[in-house]
Amino acid sequence: MNYNGKTVPTVVIKRLPRYYRYLGELLKQDIVRISSEALSRKMNVTASQIRQDFNYFGGFGQQGYGYNIEHLYQTIGDILGLNEGYRTIIVGAGNLGRALANHTTFAKRGFVLAGIFDTSEEVIGRVINGITVMPMTELENFMRESTPDIAILTVPKHAVQAVADRLIEGGIKGLLNFSYAEIDTEDKTVAIENVHLSDSLMTLSYDIKRMSEEAEG
Amino acid sequence: MNYNGKTVPTVVIKRLPRYYRYLGELLKQDIVRISSEALSRKMNVTASQIRQDFNYFGGFGQQGYGYNIEHLYQTIGDILGLNEGYRTIIVGAGNLGRALANHTTFAKRGFVLAGIFDTSEEVIGRVINGITVMPMTELENFMRESTPDIAILTVPKHAVQAVADRLIEGGIKGLLNFSYAEIDTEDKTVAIENVHLSDSLMTLSYDIKRMSEEAEG
Repeated sequence: MNYNGKTVPTVVIKRLPRYYRYLGELLKQDIVRISSEALSRKMNVTASQIRQDFNYFGGFGQQGYGYNIEHLYQTIGDILGLNEGYRTIIVGAGNLGRALANHTTFAKRGFVLAGIFDTSEEVIGRVINGITVMPMTELENFMRESTPDIAILTVPKHAVQAVADRLIEGGIKGLLNFSYAEIDTEDKTVAIENVHLSDSLMTLSYDIKRMSEEAEG
Repeated sequence: MNYNGKTVPTVVIKRLPRYYRYLGELLKQDIVRISSEALSRKMNVTASQIRQDFNYFGGFGQQGYGYNIEHLYQTIGDILGLNEGYRTIIVGAGNLGRALANHTTFAKRGFVLAGIFDTSEEVIGRVINGITVMPMTELENFMRESTPDIAILTVPKHAVQAVADRLIEGGIKGLLNFSYAEIDTEDKTVAIENVHLSDSLMTLSYDIKRMSEEAEG
């Protein structure tokens, strides 16, 4: 996705949240400045990689002097859109939807939970993290009145496309899809991010297998 | 992490689950062979990237002739350790732990759910996906008898380190940590993968912000 007309590789964009999290940790420890070398050691990427990554967004630091952490944290947060207060809804209030609704980190990152929707009579009306679960029949009304920016989809696989169609029709700007089914849309103004929880388990499995092989010699 | 003595970059390893998932989709459509060019168009990475990635693991295909999908799928699965039947436990049976316990994709990928643990009297004894939730006091006994390979941690942040210490002491091989707290260990035989659910939301937010800027400008 472009930044100020420059194409930024996806891998670089995917590293931004990690930088952001890590800088947040340093801030909590009242650390004021850090060199790209120190940041590199801590984050297990090369210092030149960090400088290259930051250059896509215009630099940020002075060489030899290091980065001002507070400034870098705010700037990366701004680039990530975390200061926009994006209003977020969760569609699907099963275990995963409930876990995400209660996920305090989302609010810490600036996202505002604006609504939760489900089709099940058992769940509708329940209060999760201060929000009453609404029926799916209310979705269009809610979208007209509250204009949410982001929808997190934790619905069953077979329901994803139909739900996504309604959200896109209603003007949603981004979909975070946990549902393991690809969303088809011709609307190029909607951002879609698919989350595959099993990918991390597979990566872990790769590491375990390599470690056993090394141990066996 | 090394593969047959060669260092494989983390970004390459992280792409393997994506290849694996995508090849699985092609298999379901009864497609037998695919060129790296076709794979590249579908997956939105360059064909030379795919060839480079696969070269870390010894190639797999014949140039001009394409890849045999079934063979490639099995081989990547094997590299990822998905044929090892790694026995997995979930520690923390809150909403997220329950969602993961019911996550059918884990079983499809070859992981065997062997146990679920919690400290809460309300949850202990409940049956989730055919497994009865055990009290944490049973953890050491269970580990001696059932020798699980992987533990998925969905416990509160403050509890992570103590739980990880017990699991490592008990001989766990890998930890998938959803708990937003770093795990410290000097045991280099344990693989640790940290999952940050808010990273995907931040990446989505980046895309939304860029799209709004383009629309405005």
